[in-house]
Amino acid sequence: MIDPTITRVEVLDLRFPTSRESIGSDAVNKNPDYSAAYCILRTDSELTGYGLTFTLGRGNELCVGAARYLAGFVQNRRLSALTDDLRAFSRQLTDDSQFRWLGPEKGVTHLAAAALINAVWDLYARQQNKPLWRLLADMTSDQILRLVDFRYIDDAITEQEALALLNAQRKGREERIADLERSGYPAYTTSVGWFGFSDEKVRSLCHEALAQGWQHFKLKVGSEPADDLRRAALVRDEIGGSSKLMMDANQRWGVNEAIDRTRELAAFHPWWMEEPTSPDDILGHARIRRESGVRIATGEHCQNRVMFKQLLQANAIDVCQIDSCRLAGVNENLAVLLMAAKFGVPVCPHAGGVGLCEYVQHLSAFDYIAVSGSLENRVTEYVDHLHEHFVDPVRIRNAHYLLPTQPGYSAEMYPQTLKDYSFPDGKVWRDLA
Amino acid sequence: MIDPTITRVEVLDLRFPTSRESIGSDAVNKNPDYSAAYCILRTDSELTGYGLTFTLGRGNELCVGAARYLAGFVQNRRLSALTDDLRAFSRQLTDDSQFRWLGPEKGVTHLAAAALINAVWDLYARQQNKPLWRLLADMTSDQILRLVDFRYIDDAITEQEALALLNAQRKGREERIADLERSGYPAYTTSVGWFGFSDEKVRSLCHEALAQGWQHFKLKVGSEPADDLRRAALVRDEIGGSSKLMMDANQRWGVNEAIDRTRELAAFHPWWMEEPTSPDDILGHARIRRESGVRIATGEHCQNRVMFKQLLQANAIDVCQIDSCRLAGVNENLAVLLMAAKFGVPVCPHAGGVGLCEYVQHLSAFDYIAVSGSLENRVTEYVDHLHEHFVDPVRIRNAHYLLPTQPGYSAEMYPQTLKDYSFPDGKVWRDLA
Repeated sequence: MIDPTITRVEVLDLRFPTSRESIGSDAVNKNPDYSAAYCILRTDSELTGYGLTFTLGRGNELCVGAARYLAGFVQNRRLSALTDDLRAFSRQLTDDSQFRWLGPEKGVTHLAAAALINAVWDLYARQQNKPLWRLLADMTSDQILRLVDFRYIDDAITEQEALALLNAQRKGREERIADLERSGYPAYTTSVGWFGFSDEKVRSLCHEALAQGWQHFKLKVGSEPADDLRRAALVRDEIGGSSKLMMDANQRWGVNEAIDRTRELAAFHPWWMEEPTSPDDILGHARIRRESGVRIATGEHCQNRVMFKQLLQANAIDVCQIDSCRLAGVNENLAVLLMAAKFGVPVCPHAGGVGLCEYVQHLSAFDYIAVSGSLENRVTEYVDHLHEHFVDPVRIRNAHYLLPTQPGYSAEMYPQTLKDYSFPDGKVWRDLA
Repeated sequence: MIDPTITRVEVLDLRFPTSRESIGSDAVNKNPDYSAAYCILRTDSELTGYGLTFTLGRGNELCVGAARYLAGFVQNRRLSALTDDLRAFSRQLTDDSQFRWLGPEKGVTHLAAAALINAVWDLYARQQNKPLWRLLADMTSDQILRLVDFRYIDDAITEQEALALLNAQRKGREERIADLERSGYPAYTTSVGWFGFSDEKVRSLCHEALAQGWQHFKLKVGSEPADDLRRAALVRDEIGGSSKLMMDANQRWGVNEAIDRTRELAAFHPWWMEEPTSPDDILGHARIRRESGVRIATGEHCQNRVMFKQLLQANAIDVCQIDSCRLAGVNENLAVLLMAAKFGVPVCPHAGGVGLCEYVQHLSAFDYIAVSGSLENRVTEYVDHLHEHFVDPVRIRNAHYLLPTQPGYSAEMYPQTLKDYSFPDGKVWRDLA
């Protein structure tokens, strides 16, 4: 097997003008232009690694800048020098002695670390000629353990506990892989209920989605109370009593307001209430959960494993929504999968944006195969746009993600996309200007 | 009174090569080059506003980039358009609908918001011809209240509670101001015990500091246990039993390790243990506090008011260490002062770096005058370097900060400093290259 040297790291600023159609609009994120700081690892072989972190547009250049600095930890290194100790490598990117002041392990610098770590995993999986989920699934429990940085979480899960948990799931692995190959991984749709959509549009989208086999639907809430209630009634009416309705407030409320509003909306039997308040408010989420009686979900803005640890320790969440790029790539996501399994909380990844669906399908599959061993109460978010830019896009059948089969971590975009959507000089942006 | 229009915002990347003398070295921050993203607000009058955020060197350019974007919220606006509603202005800088994805309210983007908000306050205080602490102290309780964004904290303190608290401290204000004018605000020194200093150097620095009247001394811990114990014994021996010894682990430990190590070091009667673990670990700090029996301090890396709220709600800290630049400038610091007062936790600001001492002297003075009304268990950090670059530097007498008397927020640096320390093209950096 070749062991390529990474000879050059390109970091691109890609932006898609999604705000023009209210795609992605919610109570807080009014006008996102889905964007990516996009890393390309060129090597001295025919192999290339692709990785990204996701943002909403403005400020994407900061993630690009941070990734360009962190690229120094990758450049001119053999792939094996990184993959022989991926725990140490991920620590290098998140613990630079001057850079860490800007976090530590949060915000711009952490998002940038994710892009590079994800790119290295893509290159690794291509070298091994396996899709990422398979590369992970083929590892021994010990190998998986050594991917994870237990610093700051060993009071919640020790290495020994993690090892025992992984070993316990060796049994039944092949059946679960066969199950995924047959049916795929359950998904839910967020495409029906964006904030900026009219009632008519929501109604017709629900109708279409039902016909396509969807059984889980997300509605954006957090507007005027009467509007939320009207929209919730409308969606519930459209999807019927047996489909699951998830609500997402995107951090719109304070704690007391979140309790009141969630109680009101409970009339429409939400399967969960997502991001009812500040993503930093662990104790607040715990209180909203206790006092509303509704299942609580959060995570797309959860900055790192230390925060997820506390959400679990505080019994603050019923649904753990990892994000493939907000956390520092594959490694830190594995840490959270392990903790969630220990605490018995289902992981339902955040996706959408650009590339997030392509990423999380691998993480969900691996969670089922080797960590949680369960599909109960588990669905992965699916949003239906921008997939056409990917060389190996997600494939959905009957509201399930089909298992990826191509080598890598599925983030490679077409060369034409990289050209046209480069900001600010790509064709798409020049045409809009 | 003139109402200047901000015509141009300059943002400079200033770095000081402090790592060459182990100044600022601790268990985690091995080699900081104290740096600032430095904002200059030029106006159509003779008034100019100066503000900064503090970093450790690499990555400072990201804060500069973020501040240049946020400068758009300041540019071409009249000062009164900002100061008439400073709550709304600070919300604009921290809640941009695309930019907030990069936080929200944390890391690079929040540090950058601090620089601009602090610069606007400097300009405002100069316009009013008052030092910042006096500008705040002269406000009515209602005016102060309207500076604070209560979003996400109103479950811990309501506007009514904050108002009552401010009104209760109207009494005795003039006496407290007179007290500060007479004696200054108590300070402690961190300059004796940096990580990279030899035992001999620590010993002689303690000796000198004692002779200068210092009674509170901070020691950096978090190295090999035997080394920490030796250094703690050495400092305790040198400063005697009646001086206060604070220990600072700078996030070095996991929760369990922090409990063990803090218990061991308790033999030397630390007045507090600072940053024993991850700054994000609210529940961890609470456990370390309960199980070690030592007073716990944290805050220099506490990303925003939502985290401080929880540290207070969870009984996790005995000492609240606000940072003038980590939080989004004066406004968010006021929110934390109010919460700390409500929970009865003393505020002892983090300082040092470059410009932080110049800033926090104003916040501590205002806290005493109008919020907490008390000096009990309160000392402000003092570190003795880089003050020579400031036009109106801190003045220390008998281990107290003397009240600033010049108009503004004390962050103006000499033009020669701005030239020489610009990175990477200033003379200092060219000479080092």
